[in-house]
Amino acid sequence: MKIELAENYGFCFGVKRAIKKAEQIKNAATIGPLIHNNEEIMRLKKKFNVKTLNDVKELSDEKRAIIRTHGITKQDLENLKQKEIEIFDATCPFVTKPQQICEKMSKDGYEVVIFGDENHPEVKGVKSYVSTKAYVVLDKKELENINFSNKIAVVSQTTKKVKDFMEIVNFLILKVREVRVFNTICDATFKNQEAIAKLSQKSDIVIIVGGKNSSNTKQLFLIAKNYCSESYLIETKNELDRSWFQNKKLCGISAGASTPDWIIQEVVNEIRSFNIE
Amino acid sequence: MKIELAENYGFCFGVKRAIKKAEQIKNAATIGPLIHNNEEIMRLKKKFNVKTLNDVKELSDEKRAIIRTHGITKQDLENLKQKEIEIFDATCPFVTKPQQICEKMSKDGYEVVIFGDENHPEVKGVKSYVSTKAYVVLDKKELENINFSNKIAVVSQTTKKVKDFMEIVNFLILKVREVRVFNTICDATFKNQEAIAKLSQKSDIVIIVGGKNSSNTKQLFLIAKNYCSESYLIETKNELDRSWFQNKKLCGISAGASTPDWIIQEVVNEIRSFNIE
Repeated sequence: MKIELAENYGFCFGVKRAIKKAEQIKNAATIGPLIHNNEEIMRLKKKFNVKTLNDVKELSDEKRAIIRTHGITKQDLENLKQKEIEIFDATCPFVTKPQQICEKMSKDGYEVVIFGDENHPEVKGVKSYVSTKAYVVLDKKELENINFSNKIAVVSQTTKKVKDFMEIVNFLILKVREVRVFNTICDATFKNQEAIAKLSQKSDIVIIVGGKNSSNTKQLFLIAKNYCSESYLIETKNELDRSWFQNKKLCGISAGASTPDWIIQEVVNEIRSFNIE
Repeated sequence: MKIELAENYGFCFGVKRAIKKAEQIKNAATIGPLIHNNEEIMRLKKKFNVKTLNDVKELSDEKRAIIRTHGITKQDLENLKQKEIEIFDATCPFVTKPQQICEKMSKDGYEVVIFGDENHPEVKGVKSYVSTKAYVVLDKKELENINFSNKIAVVSQTTKKVKDFMEIVNFLILKVREVRVFNTICDATFKNQEAIAKLSQKSDIVIIVGGKNSSNTKQLFLIAKNYCSESYLIETKNELDRSWFQNKKLCGISAGASTPDWIIQEVVNEIRSFNIE
């Protein structure tokens, strides 16, 4: 069996940047997981003493706080600033952007529609910068009964699909005189998605490696599944099952934007060790 | 045969307003036809001495100029202002809007995409207010090889279909970080279109009454044709042919936004006079 990696996969720019920062800063605490990958979080804890807290309130004697790639809420940032602690911002610049847009658009009197999952930390953070009305939606249906003002700004969670974003925008164009559309979807996500779409069409089995709580990893899995029914989402090599690969000719592999290369490499090695002809 | 008028048809707000103005002002000249309907233009000439000129240059001893519903270019307006002539603005407010948007967006550094027909007077007028780059397009394909800045504003000719407008917008969202969408498509056009779509589905023959150079009339005709192959576009009752109606049970009728009621009534009377069972 041949193993082929997608043309684009794994760590994005924002994640690489955050990990590098965490390794340099050391002995710090992050509010919420730095990135959406448990294995890497554990490695950073073990090797660089980077602790993960759930909330600003959990801070006690830490001297250094790192803001996670997905960002935190404006309120949490203010709370953090009131503490005697050095703050390092590892928010992905592609996430800082919609935060800034929301702040600016609110000031200019726009209501804001955020296309995304309201429980996702990135979205919570972005939403916190809206001082007018904010509507967080995953589907245009959620917009149906809203009485909008005549000026709406729209941003997207960075990991969403542009096609779905367009549906939201198209719906708004029918309802609202001015729709100010900021395509805040991240290129890296796009590229990984395009690559897995291409690869999964010719694969007999697809393995997506990444955190099961990672939105962009799940997205890759859904795309793969769409083209190749035998697609699996795993976090580590330990979840692999030799029987999946029997009688397969091509195994496609991709990984979420917060999956480190060493984990992907372990998965590839494990599949190779199955010795499927 | 039953005759049914569409739920919405004919004169829009802007046209009613322009004609009323022309009737009140009298003895005036318009630069280009006041509205896109030859019959009505002739009536205004005959009854109210409202003359139609092709160009500002044709003005000689006129004392009053009326600006047509579709508006004129910024340059023509300036030329007009330099003459000793009283100016009455009958530009439809729904057309003034995109003109103002284009002027404002240019000032704020946005390039402007205008979805429309570059030879249409409305579009020529709107475009003349763009001082940055303006792209007039009818199809997203025309945008493919353009290197856009990262801030684009989009407006539409008032009589275009919103679905096609969305295609332009969707294309831009993929290419440009910020797309500022102004839905300048006119409600009246929408409503006439929806009504003829509904009516033509159950009709055996559809008659659209309106100027053959009127964009919105042509649009109605295309929609009708899509649902009812026996659809005709006529300007006056004289074009009607009795044989069209033979063996038909339901004749649907609609009219463009610049078709006066008296012309529609003449058409209806003429069809009735055919006495088709």
